[in-house]
Amino acid sequence: MKKVINNPENVVDEMLEGLLLAHSDQLRSVREDNRALVRADSPVQGKVAIATGGGSGHLPLFLGYVGKGMLDGVAVGNMFASPSAQVMVDVTRAIHGGAGVLYIYGNYGGDVMNFDMACEIADMEGIRVETVVATDDVASMPKGHEEQRRGVAGMFYLYKLAAAKADTGADLDEVKRIAEKASAHVRTMGVALSSCTLPAVGRPTFEIGHDQMEIGMGIHGEPGVRRGPLESADAIALSLVNSILEDMPISSGSKVSVLVNGLGATPLEELYIVYRKVHELLEEKGINIHRPYIGEFATSLEMAGLSVSILLLDDELRELLDKPFSTPFRTQN
Amino acid sequence: MKKVINNPENVVDEMLEGLLLAHSDQLRSVREDNRALVRADSPVQGKVAIATGGGSGHLPLFLGYVGKGMLDGVAVGNMFASPSAQVMVDVTRAIHGGAGVLYIYGNYGGDVMNFDMACEIADMEGIRVETVVATDDVASMPKGHEEQRRGVAGMFYLYKLAAAKADTGADLDEVKRIAEKASAHVRTMGVALSSCTLPAVGRPTFEIGHDQMEIGMGIHGEPGVRRGPLESADAIALSLVNSILEDMPISSGSKVSVLVNGLGATPLEELYIVYRKVHELLEEKGINIHRPYIGEFATSLEMAGLSVSILLLDDELRELLDKPFSTPFRTQN
Repeated sequence: MKKVINNPENVVDEMLEGLLLAHSDQLRSVREDNRALVRADSPVQGKVAIATGGGSGHLPLFLGYVGKGMLDGVAVGNMFASPSAQVMVDVTRAIHGGAGVLYIYGNYGGDVMNFDMACEIADMEGIRVETVVATDDVASMPKGHEEQRRGVAGMFYLYKLAAAKADTGADLDEVKRIAEKASAHVRTMGVALSSCTLPAVGRPTFEIGHDQMEIGMGIHGEPGVRRGPLESADAIALSLVNSILEDMPISSGSKVSVLVNGLGATPLEELYIVYRKVHELLEEKGINIHRPYIGEFATSLEMAGLSVSILLLDDELRELLDKPFSTPFRTQN
Repeated sequence: MKKVINNPENVVDEMLEGLLLAHSDQLRSVREDNRALVRADSPVQGKVAIATGGGSGHLPLFLGYVGKGMLDGVAVGNMFASPSAQVMVDVTRAIHGGAGVLYIYGNYGGDVMNFDMACEIADMEGIRVETVVATDDVASMPKGHEEQRRGVAGMFYLYKLAAAKADTGADLDEVKRIAEKASAHVRTMGVALSSCTLPAVGRPTFEIGHDQMEIGMGIHGEPGVRRGPLESADAIALSLVNSILEDMPISSGSKVSVLVNGLGATPLEELYIVYRKVHELLEEKGINIHRPYIGEFATSLEMAGLSVSILLLDDELRELLDKPFSTPFRTQN
């Protein structure tokens, strides 16, 4: 895979430098190594602050979601690697506005370990921290083991909803409740068509035949649930939607939001072709789509493929979803 | 190249169906074949209406720029193929709010021919139409032949600035003047690392070695100015910026906007690495960057590569650039 980079070892540093040069009106670095980024106007006094973090290589995840109406700070790791607990603590200190901090991040071993450690350190410093871990990837563990699942693109909804709640002046328990509710109400299923290549490794993370696809593959190349011949867009959409609805039954008359997420190399045109079928399938079941999102929300460098996330809405979540936000990567009025 | 599609012949139709299902609050189709899309609230009475059009496969170009503060309508062609004059006329009729219509599109043979024909038909119907053709691709013709150059990602600026002017209540001549000024002030240079594959063709549009890149290649695979070994991000940035500044000298103390555009498969991380160097190079020359844009603005399906556009700003253009807009693909507050 050809890459437009300099020394592979410097990819994350240079990406962060570019990002800060481009978006200094919205983002501020609070460490010399730029691994802790916060809203330019941090801390927002009296508001529950929300932090996330994770490995690089997934833009706009994670650092693309820092901004007004969204997250307060992010701890940035190396390529596909967890940031350190110390970076998370630095983020936490910089964003704490006196009302506590909520950590929302994906369920990966390194991230869990480091965020837990950061939580303990923050606690010793008198900053109350609560945690909600995203576990939306249906394919990563069978039903009954939801808490062991990985977090993928559906994490966007946890961010959005919790952040909108924090903006209402709600306290930490209430913001956490919304993040947990969002987590309980969202499921994601993905399909990978090609591998990505870590810049410092220089060869594909995994091999996949030129006519093959893998359903349920993780965004770091974690094995999925089924590998088989490449299917049509409609067949893929059906498979993804069915897996989600088997895992989280949604009754006719319900309202949902849908996120069709590109993994990196898949053109927007194809995401819309998949959305078309997802819409049709849900409509057949009497499920109404409110505020769909289509684009790249959580990528895996130049991996080809996509995921579908479905968020079951009630009035409370719908109202929060509709609130505006503004980040360097996406703005909603 | 693997694609998430159904029948290759139906890619454009199904993409448009998905798009309209997702964004019916912002977009309206005025033809049964969905090839003419306009703002949901069209026509806006008393405002100069702006239309564009071109082949499919370049999302968010062209149809992603229809919305408030942006374009009024778009004529959608087949993959990499011009829409018909009839489709353009249908767009024109649907968006005309009594103050005339401005066509802004890229300089490609089929588009020029069909838009000229549409212009004549509109004229016979009493709709005054003016045209500004984007010719920002430095690589496509040498200096002195600017009017024969292709239009690529820099077209975004023509749309944005003309639309912001139209929103002020300016008349058609004034809106056209701004589009022409934007066109005179913007240059783009791109680099391609891989080909894309047209769905109905099924094989790459062109061949390029696994360690090669082509500077100046067009977004349909038109030959560039130089093919050579893949260079570093910094070397590529230097080459693109130098070509632009040789063509359009910019004096120290000037203000510009910069657009780093991904062609489809190139990760956002790499675009930021390039932006970092572009910023550094311009800063060295005493050129200040105002409101940079980094992301996918004009793609070529799953082509890997990117382009850099530089727009020379004066106070008038800067003020127009800062105005908000809202489309299904991008929102600016």
